Amino acid sequence: MRKTIDTREAILERAVDLASTDGLEGLTIGRLAGELEMSKSGLFGHFGSKEDLQIATIERAGRRFIGRVVEPAYRSTPEGAERLRALVNGYIDHMAEDIFPGGCFWAAASAEFDGRPGPVRDAVKDAMAAWLAELERQAEAAGADDPKQLAFELHALAAGANQRYQLFGDPEAFEHARRGIERLLG
Amino acid sequence: MRKTIDTREAILERAVDLASTDGLEGLTIGRLAGELEMSKSGLFGHFGSKEDLQIATIERAGRRFIGRVVEPAYRSTPEGAERLRALVNGYIDHMAEDIFPGGCFWAAASAEFDGRPGPVRDAVKDAMAAWLAELERQAEAAGADDPKQLAFELHALAAGANQRYQLFGDPEAFEHARRGIERLLG
Repeated sequence: MRKTIDTREAILERAVDLASTDGLEGLTIGRLAGELEMSKSGLFGHFGSKEDLQIATIERAGRRFIGRVVEPAYRSTPEGAERLRALVNGYIDHMAEDIFPGGCFWAAASAEFDGRPGPVRDAVKDAMAAWLAELERQAEAAGADDPKQLAFELHALAAGANQRYQLFGDPEAFEHARRGIERLLG
Repeated sequence: MRKTIDTREAILERAVDLASTDGLEGLTIGRLAGELEMSKSGLFGHFGSKEDLQIATIERAGRRFIGRVVEPAYRSTPEGAERLRALVNGYIDHMAEDIFPGGCFWAAASAEFDGRPGPVRDAVKDAMAAWLAELERQAEAAGADDPKQLAFELHALAAGANQRYQLFGDPEAFEHARRGIERLLG
């Protein structure tokens, strides 16, 4: 059973990378089987359908993000302003450092699925909503006048940097975002 | 000849709407022919390839955007702070008012093509670069300390609102963006 779980995790790690560069829709069981040198029927044993695979991939991307961005911020800072800064700067680091090879997984998945109602879009919405709620919670603990407004602006600066970096390849976008974040939090 | 031009324009208007909701990659000549009740060979007479059609569609989306956002700002405001505000608020209006049925054409096209080098991505980059340069020019005319930084932040707030609105359908995102813009320009 342990081996089955390990195999599933290894499959999903590869699936996250593939979806990050080629989109969730490009993540077919055939394509993934080819990449992993597994049989399609072997993969179907882990995931019953493409939709199941897409949803499991989004969940896995969420765990990777939590492990690389959220948990380090929780370990190194107390609740409030410091944790808010650590989370948002961690979000920018995750774009610059390519935790996901195609840039921000959430921006790409949002753009791809926002017009397609269904369980895949719901999984993207749940992940994004959890992130925005976490920013709002920390903004509130930091004593912000309008925590929702602050969380919106912080996230927008980070998302703007990702869009700009992905399209133009210019890392100056991250500096612009960091400067805007310091102005908001400073 | 006039008729050929009119037909081409009508085709491209429909192509912009289709690409806006289904993506530029979903814009096949067969699909578009079906929507317009034209023959595929008739469409091939206007566009030699899918790539030609994608690039012409991006150019057409640019003209629609200029007609609905940039020209009204130029007609109603002098160069500088007022025009900058009119441009950015026009950008937000264009998302809320669905000039493009799938939300911001540029955000969607960026996310779709930023990882795919080639002439389609170049057309998206050219359009986005022209928009950002226009914001920087007006920020400079407005006497901003750091015009590039201001242009980055204004665009990021608008792009953040689009992402949020498209995924969650919550128009409050536009209010957040407008509040952030007023704080930057006020």
